Amino acid sequence: MAFPDSVEQLITELAKLPGIGRRSAQRIAFFILGQPPEEAGFLSQAIVDVKEKIHFCRRCFNFSEDDLCIYCRDPRRDASLICVVEEPSDIIPIEKGGDYRGLYHVLGGALSPLDGVDPEHLHIRELVDRVGKGEVAEVILATNPNTSGESTAMFIAEELRGKVRVTRLASGLPVGADLEYADEATVSRAMLGRREI
Amino acid sequence: MAFPDSVEQLITELAKLPGIGRRSAQRIAFFILGQPPEEAGFLSQAIVDVKEKIHFCRRCFNFSEDDLCIYCRDPRRDASLICVVEEPSDIIPIEKGGDYRGLYHVLGGALSPLDGVDPEHLHIRELVDRVGKGEVAEVILATNPNTSGESTAMFIAEELRGKVRVTRLASGLPVGADLEYADEATVSRAMLGRREI
Repeated sequence: MAFPDSVEQLITELAKLPGIGRRSAQRIAFFILGQPPEEAGFLSQAIVDVKEKIHFCRRCFNFSEDDLCIYCRDPRRDASLICVVEEPSDIIPIEKGGDYRGLYHVLGGALSPLDGVDPEHLHIRELVDRVGKGEVAEVILATNPNTSGESTAMFIAEELRGKVRVTRLASGLPVGADLEYADEATVSRAMLGRREI
Repeated sequence: MAFPDSVEQLITELAKLPGIGRRSAQRIAFFILGQPPEEAGFLSQAIVDVKEKIHFCRRCFNFSEDDLCIYCRDPRRDASLICVVEEPSDIIPIEKGGDYRGLYHVLGGALSPLDGVDPEHLHIRELVDRVGKGEVAEVILATNPNTSGESTAMFIAEELRGKVRVTRLASGLPVGADLEYADEATVSRAMLGRREI
């Protein structure tokens, strides 16, 4: 069916969002059409605001409205610990875990030479500089446990060798998982990383 | 975890959309943050545009950028048929069905006295007026097959009695359905509406 141009345009834009197919986009577009104008205004303004106000933290490259992000600004965070993640969204699960009270460093991706992502495209130099200032006791590499995340972790570990203690998040069976359904790579990692109890 | 205010605001607005929970809203917000500013601009502008440009069709109350909607404007549509639906979005499945070539009439909801939706809140008067002009041969009631949709259909049928042929979409087993899993009301409808083959 043919929609008016502006509706079609909205559906197209909505369908670009992650997890939104054409059908959901249509549903959302009709919902927006049915809303009071001020409600739709809140949404469009929130998008404009977030793009205007949010920048990268000068120190750790997390998203921030200020020069420094909420973690870098917080004096209660342990500045001797840096947890290195690929993207700002990776900070969420770590914060939810609740055990970590150090700072972060967002790389802005993971090494992937085939996609043209080389070390100079990530904030690795800035990490080395942070460590070089001498206040950091440990760098925890929390890049994703996949090929590009692992090679990024290996590369950074090499860059920081001898300068600071470098650790990597444990790999193994997820809590609540069923051994029967775990994939071989995960079981193999869990076996290699086994600990005495 | 705490997000900067503008990110929190965007997540809140996104989570109001149908089918978007807080987690999806977070994912979409981070996606928008990572996009080039012009892309995010397209989305916010599309929302603004749709609310500015889209009005209700003067005749059938479908969404339209012009005085008359694309169906009311189209000379190839059969003006002697009016299909009555609750919302503009209900037109989509009927158009997809591909069998209908008449016009529409959007009520703007269904009767629901408990929620304060009485006949004067729907575009029923305008429907009666359209029929009164004498060009309409049949009014097809396509309100939803639930309590409020049925009572709306009954009410309109009563209003139009003796003025025009009034029909109702068939109720029964959906194509491809499994009789074993059909609910009693649907099976009962299918039985009552059975036809000779």
